[in-house]
Amino acid sequence: MVGGSLDAFIGNVHRMAMRLDGQVELVAGAFSSSSEKSRLTGEGLFLDPRRVYADYHTMAAAEAKLPAEERIDFVSVVTPNRIHAAVATTFLEAGFHVVCDKPLAFDLQEALALQRIVHQTGRVFTLTHNYTGYPMVKEARARIRQGELGDLRKVVVEYPQGWLSLPIDAQGQKQAAWRTDPQQAGAAGCLGDIGTHAENLVHYITGLQIEELCAEFTTFVQGRRLEDDANLLIRYREGAKGVLYSSQVSAGEENALTVRIYGTKGSLEWKQEEPNELVMKFLDAPRAILRPGNGYLKASEGRFTRVPAGHPGGFVEAFANVYLEAVRAINAKIHGEALPDDCDFPTIDDGVRSMFFLEAAVCSASAGGSWTRLKSLGDLDSPHYHG
Amino acid sequence: MVGGSLDAFIGNVHRMAMRLDGQVELVAGAFSSSSEKSRLTGEGLFLDPRRVYADYHTMAAAEAKLPAEERIDFVSVVTPNRIHAAVATTFLEAGFHVVCDKPLAFDLQEALALQRIVHQTGRVFTLTHNYTGYPMVKEARARIRQGELGDLRKVVVEYPQGWLSLPIDAQGQKQAAWRTDPQQAGAAGCLGDIGTHAENLVHYITGLQIEELCAEFTTFVQGRRLEDDANLLIRYREGAKGVLYSSQVSAGEENALTVRIYGTKGSLEWKQEEPNELVMKFLDAPRAILRPGNGYLKASEGRFTRVPAGHPGGFVEAFANVYLEAVRAINAKIHGEALPDDCDFPTIDDGVRSMFFLEAAVCSASAGGSWTRLKSLGDLDSPHYHG
Amino acid sequence: MVGGSLDAFIGNVHRMAMRLDGQVELVAGAFSSSSEKSRLTGEGLFLDPRRVYADYHTMAAAEAKLPAEERIDFVSVVTPNRIHAAVATTFLEAGFHVVCDKPLAFDLQEALALQRIVHQTGRVFTLTHNYTGYPMVKEARARIRQGELGDLRKVVVEYPQGWLSLPIDAQGQKQAAWRTDPQQAGAAGCLGDIGTHAENLVHYITGLQIEELCAEFTTFVQGRRLEDDANLLIRYREGAKGVLYSSQVSAGEENALTVRIYGTKGSLEWKQEEPNELVMKFLDAPRAILRPGNGYLKASEGRFTRVPAGHPGGFVEAFANVYLEAVRAINAKIHGEALPDDCDFPTIDDGVRSMFFLEAAVCSASAGGSWTRLKSLGDLDSPHYHG
Amino acid sequence: MVGGSLDAFIGNVHRMAMRLDGQVELVAGAFSSSSEKSRLTGEGLFLDPRRVYADYHTMAAAEAKLPAEERIDFVSVVTPNRIHAAVATTFLEAGFHVVCDKPLAFDLQEALALQRIVHQTGRVFTLTHNYTGYPMVKEARARIRQGELGDLRKVVVEYPQGWLSLPIDAQGQKQAAWRTDPQQAGAAGCLGDIGTHAENLVHYITGLQIEELCAEFTTFVQGRRLEDDANLLIRYREGAKGVLYSSQVSAGEENALTVRIYGTKGSLEWKQEEPNELVMKFLDAPRAILRPGNGYLKASEGRFTRVPAGHPGGFVEAFANVYLEAVRAINAKIHGEALPDDCDFPTIDDGVRSMFFLEAAVCSASAGGSWTRLKSLGDLDSPHYHG
Repeated sequence: MVGGSLDAFIGNVHRMAMRLDGQVELVAGAFSSSSEKSRLTGEGLFLDPRRVYADYHTMAAAEAKLPAEERIDFVSVVTPNRIHAAVATTFLEAGFHVVCDKPLAFDLQEALALQRIVHQTGRVFTLTHNYTGYPMVKEARARIRQGELGDLRKVVVEYPQGWLSLPIDAQGQKQAAWRTDPQQAGAAGCLGDIGTHAENLVHYITGLQIEELCAEFTTFVQGRRLEDDANLLIRYREGAKGVLYSSQVSAGEENALTVRIYGTKGSLEWKQEEPNELVMKFLDAPRAILRPGNGYLKASEGRFTRVPAGHPGGFVEAFANVYLEAVRAINAKIHGEALPDDCDFPTIDDGVRSMFFLEAAVCSASAGGSWTRLKSLGDLDSPHYHG
Repeated sequence: MVGGSLDAFIGNVHRMAMRLDGQVELVAGAFSSSSEKSRLTGEGLFLDPRRVYADYHTMAAAEAKLPAEERIDFVSVVTPNRIHAAVATTFLEAGFHVVCDKPLAFDLQEALALQRIVHQTGRVFTLTHNYTGYPMVKEARARIRQGELGDLRKVVVEYPQGWLSLPIDAQGQKQAAWRTDPQQAGAAGCLGDIGTHAENLVHYITGLQIEELCAEFTTFVQGRRLEDDANLLIRYREGAKGVLYSSQVSAGEENALTVRIYGTKGSLEWKQEEPNELVMKFLDAPRAILRPGNGYLKASEGRFTRVPAGHPGGFVEAFANVYLEAVRAINAKIHGEALPDDCDFPTIDDGVRSMFFLEAAVCSASAGGSWTRLKSLGDLDSPHYHG
Repeated sequence: MVGGSLDAFIGNVHRMAMRLDGQVELVAGAFSSSSEKSRLTGEGLFLDPRRVYADYHTMAAAEAKLPAEERIDFVSVVTPNRIHAAVATTFLEAGFHVVCDKPLAFDLQEALALQRIVHQTGRVFTLTHNYTGYPMVKEARARIRQGELGDLRKVVVEYPQGWLSLPIDAQGQKQAAWRTDPQQAGAAGCLGDIGTHAENLVHYITGLQIEELCAEFTTFVQGRRLEDDANLLIRYREGAKGVLYSSQVSAGEENALTVRIYGTKGSLEWKQEEPNELVMKFLDAPRAILRPGNGYLKASEGRFTRVPAGHPGGFVEAFANVYLEAVRAINAKIHGEALPDDCDFPTIDDGVRSMFFLEAAVCSASAGGSWTRLKSLGDLDSPHYHG
Repeated sequence: MVGGSLDAFIGNVHRMAMRLDGQVELVAGAFSSSSEKSRLTGEGLFLDPRRVYADYHTMAAAEAKLPAEERIDFVSVVTPNRIHAAVATTFLEAGFHVVCDKPLAFDLQEALALQRIVHQTGRVFTLTHNYTGYPMVKEARARIRQGELGDLRKVVVEYPQGWLSLPIDAQGQKQAAWRTDPQQAGAAGCLGDIGTHAENLVHYITGLQIEELCAEFTTFVQGRRLEDDANLLIRYREGAKGVLYSSQVSAGEENALTVRIYGTKGSLEWKQEEPNELVMKFLDAPRAILRPGNGYLKASEGRFTRVPAGHPGGFVEAFANVYLEAVRAINAKIHGEALPDDCDFPTIDDGVRSMFFLEAAVCSASAGGSWTRLKSLGDLDSPHYHG
């Protein structure tokens, strides 16, 4: 693991997700730019001190020299966004597989460069767009793929949070400070931080591709340097229309990612805060509520639900589902096998697509909300499943 | 009553709303452009056949000639939109008060003309934006006025329906046919029909004024002549931002008008399909659920809730609340008194504001979704309460 | 109408329910034991003063003498429980049909006597167990009758309210005072007042007959003379088991009548406070949410839903549905026709069954919670529909 | 770990719960009565084969001989109920701490014997009544302890499941078969399996002690040997009244454990299937919804919530919270320290109390549902926190 010292939030989430299924053992890390902090973190995690490194370059080099059966199989990159690409590149080039927190990179340029390296090295690259790990999100995708909603017409995806309602970034709250600093977060604030999850979720469920968008950015908290609220209208290539918004000043909201998809025959709705219900509505049939662990589900991969129906799963289990798939892929690679057909995790392509999306949104917003076409999706149309 | 023959939907809603509180007696009507249909309707309603008229001109003239204690006090206009203004004008000029279904008029021109007549005649004019009649909507307004949310930052209002998902208008369904016919409905389809309710609801609750908007209209059902889906981004004069959408092809939705208002201190949410709950969320306090009939409410007008807490009220009661207030105002006028200060119903000004909104939206959508400023709100800033 | 002066709650509910569909006109009344109060009430209701009577005897006699086309068709009895039977008897014997608020009578004795009179006179007798009037309750009944749940195994019905949590009866609150006074309310407090609604609702939906029960009564508020909380276990004749409770000291609850029915194939749940949803759960199928106004419903009587799907109906509409059916039956009688087969309202037999239930419960509770058999259901097995 | 071969459900839950926080490493086990199965399980878990034992006696003996820094610190007992006590006793006597799945023992006799051994050995004994691990359950307890509901009056606790609606036990489903076999499960079926969770949950939240109860057991599925549905009325020592039911033939239910507590000032409600909401209702204040991860919570132990507000936790996290506390206590013992004051997990006393409860319920049900006093709570009144 690179990044994720004990006081960071996302590092611990990754560690819980890794541990849950007992298939991953954390054995080495460079947890902080402060070597002292890194050392303390390693100690807290009961690691062999020789494998707690002062920086990620040293780690990549040292691990690469270890015998194959000892050295790490993959690295988890949970640093601030700014160096995601650099760390990932270093480890890919040293021959390791990579699990990387989102967003993929600081900007589109960097993302495209990283994409090339992933393709060149042929390593497994997993981006932790963790919301795709919820069983009911997978069910939503399965139902749409099987045509239960007919042709898709409209998408509404919302991601309101309220934790940046006050100027806590100016008051030194660390999580808030880097997210609102263009040097560290990139050109977008809340749209980059959470709007990309919304974009990814829609793509994962529907497969729809954004053609153009109109974005309205607002910075409500005085002195903040990046937008804390973003509202978008979207036109999809396939003819569907979309409304997408993300906000971190929606006072009173916690993490209310919600998606609704409308087709010619029906619609579905999923809410991250009540993740164990998928609501389906039809033209003339009762509404249906689908819940994990039941025999009637069509996303047949039982491996994503660890407990029987009625035993609620949550955020960590969904996150662990991303790891579960990454590990399947990595295991296959290690054993020289082809990746399983049904391997299901967000890839480098998802990351690049997000950067195209962000770039267009920033461009639209800067122009006062004019309709802006996504530059090029190039070869991103490749299927979601990693290959 | 003008319009509202027995097979029309909205006429019967008006009649139930009138009857509920026992303060209005329907005594005369011109219920249909077919005099035979009008006669049958009058019969079904147990009316005196002499006061069932073949057309509204005759009715206005005849009623005006009756002795004061016999003639109608006001007329309810529930015709197709196309002649709202004409009927209302006729009765206003004949000296009657008017309750008129929305939208106010066919276009902005007509609306402004009607506004002048209302002001000249000094008659009470009530527009049945019935969703303002729900007790929890009134509570939402009261809470915001008392500053519980702080300064308003964002508004999200959604009005999805699904009943036009199939081309039932082309197949002769009457309600669908006129709503999708530009000759009868005006320049907007679903935005005119239900989007105006959304706009009115936000204005009622918040008092915010739209400065400019960006509208995306889509006609999903082939052959339909007006948009059946409309998504808008909004900038309010006061600095708040808005997302508003209405749709009649959101398959599986019934009448899911929902509004969320975010301020610096908290937010609130109200859903028309669960009208007896107002959810309030705060920066650091438990969420609050407010319900009608309780002592803790701040919209003190008990008259809008007829039964104790826990006895659910619904659409008809909310509609009746608009009539309740119209009747209070009309009674005051009849007795030569000033209108009560707290008289609370949508007025001619609400209708005109809606037409400005619609005109700008149509203009924006026609221009491919460019930001469009509302022409002029002129003297529409007058307080919502009728005076 | 007998009873229901302007300051009484239930009288106004009956009047709203009568008015809603425009088929009933209130023309006469004896609204209070105080003739002055009765007069004022009549005035407030715009009645002809000659038909506002000082007492119900006078009213029955006077109305009976009027010409058939002038006199009342039926009477609504909305007095305190104590005289329900006396008033109903008087009017039945004077030849009028009767709509009577629940409970039927002060005790079983009185109830059985009234039952005989109803049968002798052949008049229509409707008991306003209004919760049976909700469309989704009717749907629940239809689904069970069509076997969708299989054989019934278990019933859970709860009716908690909280308004008697404090000793407001001792402090002179009128509604509370008579309900907790054994001279006026009868031998049971909260079980009589609201537990009978719960019993009736289960019987209406399922047709199950109680064989024996075990009741635990508690009076939580000091000084109160009747139980304010009652918990029962029930054994139904058909083999199903039941849990039934009612409470008026469940602090924070409003009017939370809820019923769940479990069968061999599935179950259903309905909550009075969210009356527009019927939840059905199955052994291996998604949960279904059924809502009024949709084409998929099996309780086909569209007359019980006055507005399209998504326009919420509530308490008053449900109450009006009882009147709607009473009026259908009365109209049939007036025109010398047989009652319609599908006439659907609570009858004298429902009232008598409730009194058997109450008597057994009081008996069980007095004996410290011993299992007690219902005395005899005699000929109460007659089908629910009135004949 | 004893029990929990790879095909057992609860063993894996325990393993996930152990792993989540990275404080427990599974190093040894006797996973099955089949030594081959045990071996395979150990292999699947990447264990050192030398520490995968053929039976639990061998394991206890062998581990006890290992050097202190190598041997296990505690054992998790996840066998069928029948041998819980035997396994626990063996390890306690060999000097190990114990985490044991519920129920504590096969019958009261065995439970009391085990209790003596726990007290004699002074080892930490944790019973995995896992539902007490949910943060909102802990919040409910904190709120009640701080008097927010006033004096408690009524408790309603429901635990319906539907998975035994069909005779799957007779058809060889293993999980179903042992639970309905009196030789393996004990004298009660569904009440023992899940009703004890309900009893424990109420006691944990409220501290109330059952004085007497009246139980109605039903076996709905033909041929089944233990009750699959149990309804109870309860009288608490403190004067409160209770309704408790558990069922495994409530077709369509998953794991719908729900508890409602009513006091003089308000009430609260918690549902296991929506574990991240605690609803509080008051006499005259809006309803409050409390959610994990927020600053306003009064159960201050942040350690039970691993992710920020809005990131839903679930069943596994709650289970892990029991382990978290067990580990805190075990660590304290290992370091020769006193147990932390706020150590919060179910103890041997909870297990014994449950057995008194079960015994009384079986006795009441056998006697046709007569009121039955709990034999003696003896010294079980000791505070819940382990000492």
